[in-house]
Amino acid sequence: MLNTILSHRSIRKYKETFIEDEILKEILNAGTRASTTGNMQVYSMVVTKEPELRKKLWNAHFKQEMVLQAPVHLTFCADFHRFSTWCKQRKASPGYDNFLSFMTAAIDALLAAQNVSLAAEAHGLGICYLGTATYMADMLIEILKLPWLVVPVAAIVLGYPDEDPGFTDRLPLEAVVHKEVYQPYTSGSIDRIYAKKEALQLTKDLLAENKKETLAQVFTDNRYTKKDNEFFSQKFLRVLKDQGFM
Amino acid sequence: MLNTILSHRSIRKYKETFIEDEILKEILNAGTRASTTGNMQVYSMVVTKEPELRKKLWNAHFKQEMVLQAPVHLTFCADFHRFSTWCKQRKASPGYDNFLSFMTAAIDALLAAQNVSLAAEAHGLGICYLGTATYMADMLIEILKLPWLVVPVAAIVLGYPDEDPGFTDRLPLEAVVHKEVYQPYTSGSIDRIYAKKEALQLTKDLLAENKKETLAQVFTDNRYTKKDNEFFSQKFLRVLKDQGFM
Repeated sequence: MLNTILSHRSIRKYKETFIEDEILKEILNAGTRASTTGNMQVYSMVVTKEPELRKKLWNAHFKQEMVLQAPVHLTFCADFHRFSTWCKQRKASPGYDNFLSFMTAAIDALLAAQNVSLAAEAHGLGICYLGTATYMADMLIEILKLPWLVVPVAAIVLGYPDEDPGFTDRLPLEAVVHKEVYQPYTSGSIDRIYAKKEALQLTKDLLAENKKETLAQVFTDNRYTKKDNEFFSQKFLRVLKDQGFM
Repeated sequence: MLNTILSHRSIRKYKETFIEDEILKEILNAGTRASTTGNMQVYSMVVTKEPELRKKLWNAHFKQEMVLQAPVHLTFCADFHRFSTWCKQRKASPGYDNFLSFMTAAIDALLAAQNVSLAAEAHGLGICYLGTATYMADMLIEILKLPWLVVPVAAIVLGYPDEDPGFTDRLPLEAVVHKEVYQPYTSGSIDRIYAKKEALQLTKDLLAENKKETLAQVFTDNRYTKKDNEFFSQKFLRVLKDQGFM
């Protein structure tokens, strides 16, 4: 278990090798064993294999090559649709068309997604989360025909790895752990926490490639800009409204 | 790995047994190996052991007894505060005070939380997620002194189990898995999906206890009511605004 967790690397190159149905079923079943609020299971997992559909998903996910390569595409959705449909069919009035219910369902979906990812890795498969799932939720809803009260919150590609990348660096554990209550950062602690990352060859390469003075500028000016974040915020809030969660 | 995932049961009774620092550290470290958007690690884990603080958390989490019992309380937070502080200290202008950034950080926090939960279980510890983390985010922010751009999205209690509960029932796998695109539910498929759950002795006991005709009514009228959901939705949206994410 711990070994699987510690061995995680995102895989961005995949073999064409098919994933057997029995294995895929075991992996998806692992998703259902995650904790779920009130045992409501307010999530859905959409398994897309069909090449034409995967091409549409590739287009939505910023045309990342791995989406075309990996034989299986999984979309994890916050889903109060099934539960609400059941309620209506059982003389009960569902009250889940609100933001708290979206959060509840998103949490369910994400815990299931991580179980699925780890189960896949335990089977020798590789995975990569696509951060674009929330950015492009509107297109995913259209492609995957997601109904009222269903919103995608994560997507992963799944397949046999065709690369063996090194481990991604992480901040020292103390950077993300707070004892008892949140411990304020100081100018000195920020320097300490980021020192190793900033000294990496990878960072030096990024600075040269992006013509920036600091690594932070690579993030704020190129990778995750205020303008994009604000644009995609409005888009995602509109999705929540359109799907009935606001 | 798969065995740990498949063996999960939420634990609601704990021994007083102390958790060794080395074990806790390994468990938290497992959290940091989860995928994180752009390797930004925009989450924090607050580890609370001090009895007086845990009593305050118990009060916030609807006075669930297990919060007092379990020796360790973990709060997983969406956190763009550390990252934004670093940006400002490195001549970069962070643009993460928006809803998309909250979603990004919440996803990071939840994937880390599930890694931590599984790592704990692999060490023979028990965990239970507290659904109240989003309901009572405002109180948690006060108790744990969470600054601007930090919002709790999940909390778990952690300790050695003092009970050995059975597995919680789940819907059949087909209920939550959709092939290729979302497959609409029909009146017949809803009946089929919920048949096993509705026939459980647990369900019969709940109907008698709550004096309801259907299990769905137990959820809509007693457990997760529209009124509560709407109240906590407004509260959580206000928290997002106050913490700078809206």
